[in-house]
Amino acid sequence: MEIYADNGATTRLSSAALDAMLPFLKDDFGNPSSIHSFGIKAADAISRARRTVACRLGAREDEIYFNSGGSESITQAITSAAEYGAEHGKRHIITTSIEHHAVLNTMERLGRSGFEITVLPVGTDGTVDPDSVRDAIRDDTALVSVMFANNEIGTFQPVREIGRICRERGVLFHTDAVQATGHVPVNAGDIGADYISASAHKFHGPKGAGILFARREAPVSEIIFGGPQERGARAGTENVPAVVGAAAALEEACDTMDENFRYVTSLREKLIDGLLEIPGTILNGSRQKRLPGNVNVSFPGISGESLAILLDLKGIKVSTGSACNSVSTEPSYVLTAIGRSVDEALGSLRITLDETNTDEDADQIIRAVREAVIKLR
Amino acid sequence: MEIYADNGATTRLSSAALDAMLPFLKDDFGNPSSIHSFGIKAADAISRARRTVACRLGAREDEIYFNSGGSESITQAITSAAEYGAEHGKRHIITTSIEHHAVLNTMERLGRSGFEITVLPVGTDGTVDPDSVRDAIRDDTALVSVMFANNEIGTFQPVREIGRICRERGVLFHTDAVQATGHVPVNAGDIGADYISASAHKFHGPKGAGILFARREAPVSEIIFGGPQERGARAGTENVPAVVGAAAALEEACDTMDENFRYVTSLREKLIDGLLEIPGTILNGSRQKRLPGNVNVSFPGISGESLAILLDLKGIKVSTGSACNSVSTEPSYVLTAIGRSVDEALGSLRITLDETNTDEDADQIIRAVREAVIKLR
Repeated sequence: MEIYADNGATTRLSSAALDAMLPFLKDDFGNPSSIHSFGIKAADAISRARRTVACRLGAREDEIYFNSGGSESITQAITSAAEYGAEHGKRHIITTSIEHHAVLNTMERLGRSGFEITVLPVGTDGTVDPDSVRDAIRDDTALVSVMFANNEIGTFQPVREIGRICRERGVLFHTDAVQATGHVPVNAGDIGADYISASAHKFHGPKGAGILFARREAPVSEIIFGGPQERGARAGTENVPAVVGAAAALEEACDTMDENFRYVTSLREKLIDGLLEIPGTILNGSRQKRLPGNVNVSFPGISGESLAILLDLKGIKVSTGSACNSVSTEPSYVLTAIGRSVDEALGSLRITLDETNTDEDADQIIRAVREAVIKLR
Repeated sequence: MEIYADNGATTRLSSAALDAMLPFLKDDFGNPSSIHSFGIKAADAISRARRTVACRLGAREDEIYFNSGGSESITQAITSAAEYGAEHGKRHIITTSIEHHAVLNTMERLGRSGFEITVLPVGTDGTVDPDSVRDAIRDDTALVSVMFANNEIGTFQPVREIGRICRERGVLFHTDAVQATGHVPVNAGDIGADYISASAHKFHGPKGAGILFARREAPVSEIIFGGPQERGARAGTENVPAVVGAAAALEEACDTMDENFRYVTSLREKLIDGLLEIPGTILNGSRQKRLPGNVNVSFPGISGESLAILLDLKGIKVSTGSACNSVSTEPSYVLTAIGRSVDEALGSLRITLDETNTDEDADQIIRAVREAVIKLR
């Protein structure tokens, strides 16, 4: 019996998404740019998917761009704002210390080409203070990029307040909503963001399907050059099955969001309660303001990696930190940013549940973690 | 009865590719970066796919990078060489007038950031003269980019000769082999290219699956930032099903290449002979040195677009020019570059066959084109 509890890394493709994709993996294989009926059918499917995604994100159709994934969305959003900023003498960008590497590495690159990056600290619960964003904004600030919810500790950021501040100051605002989209309401108008990044495989859609929301007035520049696909913003033959699957997955995720949120939150709470009974356990991130399925705990003095491997042997799939950094033996920069010691950070475990997990899964995970911790101690 | 003869735009996903993908679209959905067994299974699948692709392209495993498609491969290859060149005071690039827009638009962008682009003309058959490449190379030349075979007229370029010249002069060489890969032998060692771009959906693999070969010594810089996937060259969770499907499709395409080449070439010859019997027909591109399935003809005085639409109504799917430019009513820049008049270029039709087409298809296409041409005249 296997328990998959690494939904922050990736999720199982839903039947609804796969069923939507299959016709386009089989007979309806046309290139959306072709002028014949096969092409038109494919182009229509992309249009319908775009309408669905726009509707679910509170956006207009011409504000949705499909691409290959979350990292591409993030790179393009930040690059677009930076290039526009540079043209207008604005070479300052604000972000936080716990963003995903797609944000931090894009910024690092911009830093090498003359941008100044202000990296704001976060509190012990992982939240950035909106006032610190306000104070950091300068006349030459081109962009603020603050994630919707953290990929390791699940903490929500005050994106609505930050969005309001950015609008007041006329600064572009990007939010990486890769972990949040499909799990909690992500609404463009509500957030007041100029750019929102999302990735279908985090909400039971296919891998290789990214979504970039860019407000109609926000600059968008290409990072992949070629044909006029995606209204000139993203070249390359559209990945029709992936786009269709992303839309189907988002639709299902949004339709079931309220009940899933309640159910997964209750599982999470049970799991946190159970894990905190193991002596020495520390919860990382805010207890309340976190993604419904995210549990991140530290067992000081124990290797989180060894713990994850022991759990794997018992059929329980979890991670240490985020999947993207899992090959690294460095302590998580997110955990050190919220004040954890190196020892605490190296002893962390991320368990990310979703609606396919059961009450019994939570019980088994608690038992298995307890046994493994005792063994490793 | 429908006849699909637009294989230059995209191809039907093969059963072998789909069968290889399905497990990874269903139960084996792990993130290759995850440390647990689900992740390891996905990572192993990527490694196997990389070995297959490397073997088929005459490359080493660490010279193969997976990404989202041909345009991304091309953008990354050219950008990598340009950035490396700029660091070494080399800001000159050589290409030809009939490259795909992914090449030309990436270069146009580099032109705006201080690069000088030499665009070489091609002869009436669409071939660039290797001596013109040799003559154009300067001390500050960072890159030569010449396509393997043209996407509109199918003409092969003398890439081996150009590769040899570039090696002699110590200049990086990229070839866009998007149309050629899987149809004719594309071997890295044989071509002597530093970069080769390919796209799976052009050889019965999935959409959203690009391949970049970069010789071990060739610089590769990221265009999508984030995690350390693809040895740090391309961030973002790997699209495991697409990568696996690409490898399966390439394997099948290579295994059946010789017989397919002979068969499709004979179909093409029959089709060209039949079409040339229609009074006024002009063949575009070289009669011999062209992709096995590529037929490109002009009917002066007739709208190629109208012709394609009439054929579509009869169930025959073909294109005017390339799919990427099909929404444009401008005459093809490839056809004007080989000396066609605007009228001749606007009257062009591209018919791209593959091994699923039959002798009867060729007969039907000839009949249907003849009737449509008479109707439009």
